[in-house]
Amino acid sequence: MTPDLADALASDAARVEAALDGLLTPPAGPERRVFEAMRYACLAGGKRLRPFLVLESCRLCDSDGEGALRIAAALEMVHCYSLVHDDLPAMDDDDMRRGRPTVHKAFDEATAILAGDGLLTRAFEVLADPATHPDGGTRAALVLALARAAGPDGMVGGQMIDLAVEHVVTGIGEITRLQRLKTGALIQFACEAGALAARAPTPLHDALRFYAQDFGLAFQMIDDLLDVEGSAAAMGKAVGKDAARGKATFVSLLGVDRARDQAHRLADQAAAHLAPFGRRAGRLRDLAAWVVKRTS
Amino acid sequence: MTPDLADALASDAARVEAALDGLLTPPAGPERRVFEAMRYACLAGGKRLRPFLVLESCRLCDSDGEGALRIAAALEMVHCYSLVHDDLPAMDDDDMRRGRPTVHKAFDEATAILAGDGLLTRAFEVLADPATHPDGGTRAALVLALARAAGPDGMVGGQMIDLAVEHVVTGIGEITRLQRLKTGALIQFACEAGALAARAPTPLHDALRFYAQDFGLAFQMIDDLLDVEGSAAAMGKAVGKDAARGKATFVSLLGVDRARDQAHRLADQAAAHLAPFGRRAGRLRDLAAWVVKRTS
Repeated sequence: MTPDLADALASDAARVEAALDGLLTPPAGPERRVFEAMRYACLAGGKRLRPFLVLESCRLCDSDGEGALRIAAALEMVHCYSLVHDDLPAMDDDDMRRGRPTVHKAFDEATAILAGDGLLTRAFEVLADPATHPDGGTRAALVLALARAAGPDGMVGGQMIDLAVEHVVTGIGEITRLQRLKTGALIQFACEAGALAARAPTPLHDALRFYAQDFGLAFQMIDDLLDVEGSAAAMGKAVGKDAARGKATFVSLLGVDRARDQAHRLADQAAAHLAPFGRRAGRLRDLAAWVVKRTS
Repeated sequence: MTPDLADALASDAARVEAALDGLLTPPAGPERRVFEAMRYACLAGGKRLRPFLVLESCRLCDSDGEGALRIAAALEMVHCYSLVHDDLPAMDDDDMRRGRPTVHKAFDEATAILAGDGLLTRAFEVLADPATHPDGGTRAALVLALARAAGPDGMVGGQMIDLAVEHVVTGIGEITRLQRLKTGALIQFACEAGALAARAPTPLHDALRFYAQDFGLAFQMIDDLLDVEGSAAAMGKAVGKDAARGKATFVSLLGVDRARDQAHRLADQAAAHLAPFGRRAGRLRDLAAWVVKRTS
């Protein structure tokens, strides 16, 4: 990773952590417990890749500031809610996440379900609040885009497919569609956030969207590779689960080498889409180059 | 129930059913299953009390039409999602709802979790869509109000308290606060929807809010009474569960007679708040009178 990108990631992660902390202040009443679980799920550190994409796309579109940070935090709440529900015994049944017990292990299942529900709802509350953007139409557009990305035609739909196709052999086209919904849709929202907040002209909006689509697929291919090759210690969660369940992944369908090649090709392609931003998009190009080299 | 109120409830319920049907069209892909579960949860009939409150408050504020129907449908999605998650084994563990197997029984737990998530997300998508209201600021205000009502400072917070206080004796003040959050907040959104959509003057907005608060408490007191006195056949779900769990309710704290008296007093008070609307608010007054006499 270039030093500039490393600095920007670390500094943005710290800003997002502080924003999440402020947006999830626990009340005094007995409902405090659900806030504690929401905070446990959200304030666990991590790379904060999606918030970084939001903040960087906002910088590129000259819509940086407090509002951008709120959009980044809202998206991270949605990402964290999806992990909390995904980890539940009825779903992926994972005990560890980021090197710590998952929310239903640290609290209990009912609290984990409610914490996920609470994070998803709070995310829309944050976006719709006038503090996020002075223009109501822009706030509504952000809500609409995030809801589409996270809902049954996006992430939730992808999770449903992931459950439905378990143990069923399926082709590369189906896996690609699954991943575009399950992980790609939120990444696309992150990259488009700047264009939405700034009402950027179509060529810039398109550049960010196309970057997001190739970046998202490359990211997922490397995730699949790490699930095969990574160690549980480095990942902070169980690995090798996909293979153990006989689930089709990019790696099971393409093999390790072709999956890695294709991820690199997609990362190059993602970077190329950013031409309309010129040299200002250096960090997003660096990020694409790094994401296919990462080891955790 | 007066014939006029019965007609209005039945006609609005049919309109809402059709709107929900249109807003939950299943796609062709394998994510179809989550749509089927969402439809199972939402298209089960029922009184559609909350959507009726939305539509009636919109009529009173002269903001009736397609947009009002979309707000009503969005709110019903949130109500139905909360029931799906509430019924899960880790929460209330209910097998029956409205005389049919609950979603996790008819499908499976993972699909029920996703269906709830999908309904909650789709609700915000519907509100934020330009088809709901031409003014972006009004759409954002509707999203903000629904998110506050449904989130950790509203319904989700109430559900957390409900879990936290189980088996703990608690006073009438705490029960009242719990119910204001758990069931009151969504009812308040329903009644305020018309004022929000029409940007009604403060006295009209306040009248609807105060009506909602008293109506919501009266409704909940009668719910508690029906849980003690009703039959499973009439209710379409298990009854007597609160008492079996040793949970404090309005009835366990006040006794049957005082709870019924107080519910009637609150219903009268709710109706009185509607004075600024004059005779036009007849149906909402009739509804308050009926809700404390209902037997299911």
